[in-house]
Amino acid sequence: MSRARPELSNHRIDIDRLMGRINELGTIGALAGGGVSRLALTDADRQGRDRVLGWMRELGLAITIDRIGNVIGMRPGSENGAAVTMGSHIDTVATGGLYDGNLGVLAGLEVIAVLNEARIETRRPVAVGFFTNEEGARFQPDMLGSGVHQGALDLADMLAVTDRDGTRLGDELRIIGYAGDTPVGAYRAHCFLELHIEQGPLLEEAGTTIGAVTGVQGISWTEYIISVVSNHAGTTPMRLRHDAGYVAAAIAVEARALAGDFAGDQVATVGVTRLQPDLVNVIANQAVLTLDLRNTDDALLTRAESRMSEFIRTTAAREGVEVQSRRLARFAPVQFAPEMIEAVEATAAALGHSVRRLPSGAGHDAQMFAPNCPTAMIFVPSQHGISHNIREHTACADIQAGADVLLHIILTQAGWRLK
Amino acid sequence: MSRARPELSNHRIDIDRLMGRINELGTIGALAGGGVSRLALTDADRQGRDRVLGWMRELGLAITIDRIGNVIGMRPGSENGAAVTMGSHIDTVATGGLYDGNLGVLAGLEVIAVLNEARIETRRPVAVGFFTNEEGARFQPDMLGSGVHQGALDLADMLAVTDRDGTRLGDELRIIGYAGDTPVGAYRAHCFLELHIEQGPLLEEAGTTIGAVTGVQGISWTEYIISVVSNHAGTTPMRLRHDAGYVAAAIAVEARALAGDFAGDQVATVGVTRLQPDLVNVIANQAVLTLDLRNTDDALLTRAESRMSEFIRTTAAREGVEVQSRRLARFAPVQFAPEMIEAVEATAAALGHSVRRLPSGAGHDAQMFAPNCPTAMIFVPSQHGISHNIREHTACADIQAGADVLLHIILTQAGWRLK
Repeated sequence: MSRARPELSNHRIDIDRLMGRINELGTIGALAGGGVSRLALTDADRQGRDRVLGWMRELGLAITIDRIGNVIGMRPGSENGAAVTMGSHIDTVATGGLYDGNLGVLAGLEVIAVLNEARIETRRPVAVGFFTNEEGARFQPDMLGSGVHQGALDLADMLAVTDRDGTRLGDELRIIGYAGDTPVGAYRAHCFLELHIEQGPLLEEAGTTIGAVTGVQGISWTEYIISVVSNHAGTTPMRLRHDAGYVAAAIAVEARALAGDFAGDQVATVGVTRLQPDLVNVIANQAVLTLDLRNTDDALLTRAESRMSEFIRTTAAREGVEVQSRRLARFAPVQFAPEMIEAVEATAAALGHSVRRLPSGAGHDAQMFAPNCPTAMIFVPSQHGISHNIREHTACADIQAGADVLLHIILTQAGWRLK
Repeated sequence: MSRARPELSNHRIDIDRLMGRINELGTIGALAGGGVSRLALTDADRQGRDRVLGWMRELGLAITIDRIGNVIGMRPGSENGAAVTMGSHIDTVATGGLYDGNLGVLAGLEVIAVLNEARIETRRPVAVGFFTNEEGARFQPDMLGSGVHQGALDLADMLAVTDRDGTRLGDELRIIGYAGDTPVGAYRAHCFLELHIEQGPLLEEAGTTIGAVTGVQGISWTEYIISVVSNHAGTTPMRLRHDAGYVAAAIAVEARALAGDFAGDQVATVGVTRLQPDLVNVIANQAVLTLDLRNTDDALLTRAESRMSEFIRTTAAREGVEVQSRRLARFAPVQFAPEMIEAVEATAAALGHSVRRLPSGAGHDAQMFAPNCPTAMIFVPSQHGISHNIREHTACADIQAGADVLLHIILTQAGWRLK
């Protein structure tokens, strides 16, 4: 691992070839007005997987599919051993963009294409993977495939999780033909690199091309179900009210206040609120809401969770409503390897790109690798900070810059010579 | 109109016959676990209308159906002229009870049955009506049929209103066979009486059997659509957020605060809140909510509307979101005729029932008659204050008491002798 400014080869990625694959993959599950819908393990996901698998074969990679449906394409090195590994995911949210996840996988393929074209032999194997159900939009938790892959989640438990309709993940894997036979947990990466769009506004705001990601915020997702007997909106005096919708609103407002009080990296979001019976003149007898809390500091995240729990307990008691809570996800903050963060900074600088360190607000597959091997992420700017939206966009020049940084870190990590 | 304690006849309603009709009508559109669903102008509403029409025919009433589907059954008097009129509605909310509306109509039929059985001849005609789409659960505004009937709403406009699916009210009237040919606005009532369940907890709380309703709260219903471009919940720092869901929650919390500040009869309810895309990790890019404000004092109601509008305007501006508003309903408070309120009090007392004055929090068909003829409402207690719910219940003895009060006011108003 080089801490000095690396000596760069003259090799560069082919941005037209990379954009061609991004746009072609974007036709599968394409939405009117742009964007894409490829929820994990749907038929659209299968078609996307088939397309990427086809490209892996064209590039001569040795492909394995594991029992949770993760796909790894391997390019052998002159020596055996753990592969320098790139990867991300190709599943999307219901109304997603073309770049989230897909960029990291397809830039990985582009790196392989450069190695092939330039007849480069690497010392270590080089691999590209895509991991099942990263988004958590259909099955919870998110980062499910990489979590099983790296031993953080149990295979049998994850095969048994169900979506909203009660469909089992394991059944869907079989139906789409991606219940592979490679055992999980056998894979050892020499190091892991994930190129990803920022999905936030900070790089664009700072006019910076490359983000050297320092780690991933800790994430706490909780669902609350608030229940009460309903009453007529007009005839029930305020003092006799038990309003599930009011309690839900109060939680969302308190979450915003908490984020203001904690400041720093703390974010708090209520993204789901559903009232029943959801009528103008009936006080809600049930409210379902989700609370998403994130912080780079685990102690602060735990304090945020405690403050919200206490607020919800006292507010519910005062209103005379019942609250049931269910933890949807909890990930501690992750710190990436300092030498890998430095490698991203140094490589970007050597390529002439502006670069700055920042934490990731979103969860990523890379965080599952971080405990087990040196791991880094490269961020490129998201236009207007928009992601999880059909208007998600990253400029071509930024994608090119990010993929070139990826290429050169891989070359350094793998060791190389011309055949 | 008697202001002294009225001389009561010995006639009483037949509670078993009345309960039989209430329970029989409750089998049409019956829901599992109790309650009923007969949204206006659905097939279930048609079946309910057919049943009540059948009973009107059995009782020998002369039936007219007007162009907005209101049905009036008339029992002639010894003199011509405007009828002493009873009525309410038989449409329900999606998960309604057996008493809301239905009680006023079926108690009216029970009064007619007593007159017939006792061979009573009244001087004035006596009529019972049921009015289209009182609930406003399917078509807005509510009290639509009685509003057209009494000239507050335009017939052509109301025939053109559509439900959520875009279905026109006028088309549905024709389909269920209730687009009558009697012109609206021709009907003159001598006076109007509506027996109704309280739908709130006050009578039960006070241990009182009969409510002499002083008037109806003014009602202001507004729908707000809050829009913004969505951003990722983790990656967007709090200072750069435009969160439609937060603005919706802040409105609901402010509505509660307003009700506390105004106190008195002011109520404020956010019964509808819908977020898009409604995902745990995506900041809502759209929120739809409804605000229901009510007060017995129109000046206070107008002040409540102004304060909420101002709050919504400034909160939306601070958050950088757009808000569109749409008025769903606006009714000024209604005062019932003092001599009619006194008649309810005096008649209840003469029958030996406890009685107290109270305003109605909910809108009722009676308020549409109030500007045009002396009008009153009789309330009976709602168990636990529950209404618009399958658990809506009123004790038999209270129904009997309310229907007897109705009978004796009708006798007084119509003038009578045995044939």
